[in-house]
Amino acid sequence: MPQDAQPENIITALLAGDRRALARAITIVENGPAGGGGSAGTGTIGASDILRETYKLTGRSYILGVTGPPGAGKSTLVDTFAKLLRAQGKTVGIVAVDPSSPFTGGAILGDRIRMNSIGTDPGIFIRSLATRGHLGGLSRAASDVVKVLDASGKDVIIVETVGVGQAEVEIAGLAHTTIVVVVPGMGDDVQAIKAGILEIGDVFVVNKADREGADRAVMELDVMLDLANRQGWRPPIVKTIANTGENVAAVVEAVERHRRHITDSGALERRRMTQGENEIRELVGRFAAARILAGAEESGDFAALAQRVATRGLDPYSAAEEILAKHGEAAGGQRNDGRE
Amino acid sequence: MPQDAQPENIITALLAGDRRALARAITIVENGPAGGGGSAGTGTIGASDILRETYKLTGRSYILGVTGPPGAGKSTLVDTFAKLLRAQGKTVGIVAVDPSSPFTGGAILGDRIRMNSIGTDPGIFIRSLATRGHLGGLSRAASDVVKVLDASGKDVIIVETVGVGQAEVEIAGLAHTTIVVVVPGMGDDVQAIKAGILEIGDVFVVNKADREGADRAVMELDVMLDLANRQGWRPPIVKTIANTGENVAAVVEAVERHRRHITDSGALERRRMTQGENEIRELVGRFAAARILAGAEESGDFAALAQRVATRGLDPYSAAEEILAKHGEAAGGQRNDGRE
Repeated sequence: MPQDAQPENIITALLAGDRRALARAITIVENGPAGGGGSAGTGTIGASDILRETYKLTGRSYILGVTGPPGAGKSTLVDTFAKLLRAQGKTVGIVAVDPSSPFTGGAILGDRIRMNSIGTDPGIFIRSLATRGHLGGLSRAASDVVKVLDASGKDVIIVETVGVGQAEVEIAGLAHTTIVVVVPGMGDDVQAIKAGILEIGDVFVVNKADREGADRAVMELDVMLDLANRQGWRPPIVKTIANTGENVAAVVEAVERHRRHITDSGALERRRMTQGENEIRELVGRFAAARILAGAEESGDFAALAQRVATRGLDPYSAAEEILAKHGEAAGGQRNDGRE
Repeated sequence: MPQDAQPENIITALLAGDRRALARAITIVENGPAGGGGSAGTGTIGASDILRETYKLTGRSYILGVTGPPGAGKSTLVDTFAKLLRAQGKTVGIVAVDPSSPFTGGAILGDRIRMNSIGTDPGIFIRSLATRGHLGGLSRAASDVVKVLDASGKDVIIVETVGVGQAEVEIAGLAHTTIVVVVPGMGDDVQAIKAGILEIGDVFVVNKADREGADRAVMELDVMLDLANRQGWRPPIVKTIANTGENVAAVVEAVERHRRHITDSGALERRRMTQGENEIRELVGRFAAARILAGAEESGDFAALAQRVATRGLDPYSAAEEILAKHGEAAGGQRNDGRE
């Protein structure tokens, strides 16, 4: 077994700024089911080892979400944004969440193209996450990758999502400030989409502002934001031309104003508390279910109950309760080998 | 308390075909957290009461998913499709999942418009579900509403989603046959979207086929489907003009062919088994977490651990394990009042 497969080594290297160790750690948390993987006996490292060991170093990065419809120029905006942060001496992590099919290889292609533009800067680390057929998996992976980048000491982490569906809303929940990017002339069909993301946008960008209809798009957003009640923060609308870099500095400023706003109002602190609580709740459910179901599966009880549910002889609620009555106590007690 | 608030009454009425009881039951499962709500002591009815009592009557409806980008004409297609099914003597339930903001009232507006077209037919029942800020909530609500419609005896249930994100992929997982609707001339930006939904489409519809570029859209889809490996089912591509009803009958036929295919191959049966298993697993986790966390919250342990996690003095994995070690056994034992 190679030496760097030891948890201590990879984590030490990651914290020392080793780029290869960071890439490796991210791949592990991206692929491994968080909370699973690893085993003290074999010495190989799992996602939970990395997340446990690095957690205490997280909470220092500022996390930005960038979302908007395909073709809005998000990647170009993010790249320019990242360069401006680099000019301020800040280190940047970029997580691009790409819902396109693994079949098209969209995520990998995207990485390659971007590596040519900003990827050679050692102060910028880019990783694309492609869909894994299950949204829960994707947003959990994004959340875990952000944590590793955070622990590695990146000053700013940008989570860029392609699309404007609920998946994006969920992933935007990771961000301290969410930038919504739109382009002029998208037509009425897009109104519905705009409405859906109004509530998650802290800063709005009308990109490709040299196109016809840019002022109209700003006006429409303005009217919609007037109707929304945002409690103390009126999201600014910034016109940019990301291709030429025009006015992207104003987006950086708008983000900085929002950061000060949520810091001063205590919202950032409250969010940090809530995120921790939600994480504990989720892990309790996941760990408990894994232990209880392991017992129910070994004994054959699970298969028997599932068969009755499939044939409608029993409802799944009653089946779950039978399993809890018989195997539920397994959720308690001490960890045996320290892993789920 | 009104008499019809008794679980038996509402469920009896629902099964007798009472439309008002059906609407009421759907509202309860839509709003109530499934597995929660209700209390034997008070006599009010909760989501879990309805889902438990009606489960044995589910599994008889054929479930169709319809997805595609905004503006593709999905609602018109679904309405025409529903009319054709009615002409065959079939009853239809329609669940429209709308990710737009509650702020715009999109879902309610959509309902009103459609009620004028097909909503007066007692053989058709329409319900729109708006986003609830959390994808898990939306797809669970859709799944539960489908179950109630299934138990009420609808022959076909159509789940229509607006958008093509991961949320839609997840909700399409409910469907036995998924129809993907696209329109000509959406430009290159939409290629990525098309690719993302290739795998979930069993039948493809190029709607607004009188527009320029319809043949090209068919050809593009054709090429993409050639590259995908679909194991025994080559998704047909149907050109329609839903506004005039043109060729929608061919979509009905394509769906019927797919239904026969998955019935004959055993895929429908396997899916039913897997769905039951997944449902039991999810409920075990949810019920166990509710019981364990109730104890941890009452004792103050949860608040203390959450505080340490928020300040990075402890990682959430270790916090979850401490809770399980101390309160995990509460997951076992008998139901006390029969509710979570």
